[in-house]
Amino acid sequence: MKKEALKKIITKIFKKHNLSLLHSKICADALINAELVGSPSHGLSRLKMYCDRIKKKLINPNPKIKIKNISKSVCHIDADDSIGFVAADVAIKKAISITRKAGIGFVAVKNSGHYGLSGYYAEKAAKKNLIAICFTNAPPAIAPYGSKKKLFGTNPICFAAPTSSKIPFVLDTSMSMINRGKIRIAAKLGKKIPYGTALDKFGNITTNAEKALSGVQLPIAGYRGSGLAWMVDILSGVITGSNHGGKVRDPFDDFNGPQNVGHLFILMKPNLFINNYNKRIKENIKKVKSLSKIKNGNDIFFPGQNKFKRLRQNSNKKIKIPSNILKDINILLK
Amino acid sequence: MKKEALKKIITKIFKKHNLSLLHSKICADALINAELVGSPSHGLSRLKMYCDRIKKKLINPNPKIKIKNISKSVCHIDADDSIGFVAADVAIKKAISITRKAGIGFVAVKNSGHYGLSGYYAEKAAKKNLIAICFTNAPPAIAPYGSKKKLFGTNPICFAAPTSSKIPFVLDTSMSMINRGKIRIAAKLGKKIPYGTALDKFGNITTNAEKALSGVQLPIAGYRGSGLAWMVDILSGVITGSNHGGKVRDPFDDFNGPQNVGHLFILMKPNLFINNYNKRIKENIKKVKSLSKIKNGNDIFFPGQNKFKRLRQNSNKKIKIPSNILKDINILLK
Repeated sequence: MKKEALKKIITKIFKKHNLSLLHSKICADALINAELVGSPSHGLSRLKMYCDRIKKKLINPNPKIKIKNISKSVCHIDADDSIGFVAADVAIKKAISITRKAGIGFVAVKNSGHYGLSGYYAEKAAKKNLIAICFTNAPPAIAPYGSKKKLFGTNPICFAAPTSSKIPFVLDTSMSMINRGKIRIAAKLGKKIPYGTALDKFGNITTNAEKALSGVQLPIAGYRGSGLAWMVDILSGVITGSNHGGKVRDPFDDFNGPQNVGHLFILMKPNLFINNYNKRIKENIKKVKSLSKIKNGNDIFFPGQNKFKRLRQNSNKKIKIPSNILKDINILLK
Repeated sequence: MKKEALKKIITKIFKKHNLSLLHSKICADALINAELVGSPSHGLSRLKMYCDRIKKKLINPNPKIKIKNISKSVCHIDADDSIGFVAADVAIKKAISITRKAGIGFVAVKNSGHYGLSGYYAEKAAKKNLIAICFTNAPPAIAPYGSKKKLFGTNPICFAAPTSSKIPFVLDTSMSMINRGKIRIAAKLGKKIPYGTALDKFGNITTNAEKALSGVQLPIAGYRGSGLAWMVDILSGVITGSNHGGKVRDPFDDFNGPQNVGHLFILMKPNLFINNYNKRIKENIKKVKSLSKIKNGNDIFFPGQNKFKRLRQNSNKKIKIPSNILKDINILLK
């Protein structure tokens, strides 16, 4: 399906679920972007879940989002159980606006939900010539180092910076060896997951996606990744007033209440301390990209470059929609 | 040797190398702390190197450190090729002071040197009831993903937060599979390094520490760790006005100029957005620590807890000094 047609359909679905036209479009854009950049685990495969949670009143389709200005550079947002896309859209816009004035900006969000790809928001800041660091927590997926029970979410660390070219530097890296959405898709398609990325519920390594979903994902780099996931839980959960310590609800199978995900956006002007950022970042990237490559290796890319390439390649192509998701879409439209 | 006696000796050595008494004590404290917390790779094994660089006028023993206040929350420090310990001491104190007033603080440092353990500075902020994120770059050690040449430093991500107990949460994690100092010590002692942590200069995996020193260290988690190390280079090098893109000099074997390391300290009050941080962080830590453990596993610790335990255990013990370092100390005292 062409992206314009798909956008109309998704917008219509969210409107049918009582979101405003503006909010429906924000959600449609985020979901379609995930498909175009090659992250379907954060795209249409989640559409039914969002609608289910709206129907069950766990996502508020008409949130009264409260924005509390704490200082020139600091703002706290209560998203009122809004869908994550809308909460994050409000937050990143606010963060961009205060940072353009004050040079730095801290925006925390509570009572939000899963917002899709962190890189999608960080990139918006980089396109406005700002540097962004974003943290969000997520439902339990990773076992803390030393435990066989999951507690931390995939808790990404996301960083974006302008590069003085059309393509911003966008690093968006989960603290999990494998993305939970990818396990879910593998389970749906009956495919295996790579060895060494997850344990079953008994603590044994498994390549069975179904078993991994009821088990735990392994953190990157052992205690290092476990510590980083914990840091993200403190920064996006503990200090923002959101759920934390394993209490963020799984949007797919926990219908006992809203998710109450937390986000933290830290932004700054790239020329906060210097006056020749563009020249310096260009030199930096050029230096890394010109290094000698490993044997038979690809070109050296900076984070975000591959995603940008995929986005450009896919933007004029039809988006392929798996039959089960197409079925969901037809039901949701009724 | 008892730590008090050792402090006197190291202070004397730095004084002999023209540092002020105050600066000499700052350096001695940092080096002894590294020994006490069990990180000898950042301790006395570096003493001779610092003195060599002072003698060669690559470290300025009497720096005119310039502090430029950019706003209530933002400060830029030119460390004038000071020894890293002193630059970082000035910077973290400044960051603590502005954050206590303004709620958030950004302090960037340029023209600095290797400052030892990031956790040592972040912990100072946590002890003043503040949250700290610290970034520093370092001489080339890690090959960017896709390259066989080293360029990024071990570029740690460091995060500290108060826990409402005596022991702060202090995560200080290198982006390298192995600490460069540990390879250097293994080389000195003729020991092997773990498999899969480094490549020799031809791009082959090696367990020979000498070969690893002239080769490259591998980033944690492949492209993820490579991206995070790149992020740290941008945040501590590109935007601070310091060397970056592989230009930070190796303090042990590059005597062509000062290192010009960069640091970035981002601090915030834990109750910036909420008013019950202490209660929330206690709950968070309790929750993680009470999870069921892996078979035959140790208790689950939060980052910094083990280091704190080692510090307490070692504080009243004599510090063991390897004979080669003792020899260096005796020469430096002459």
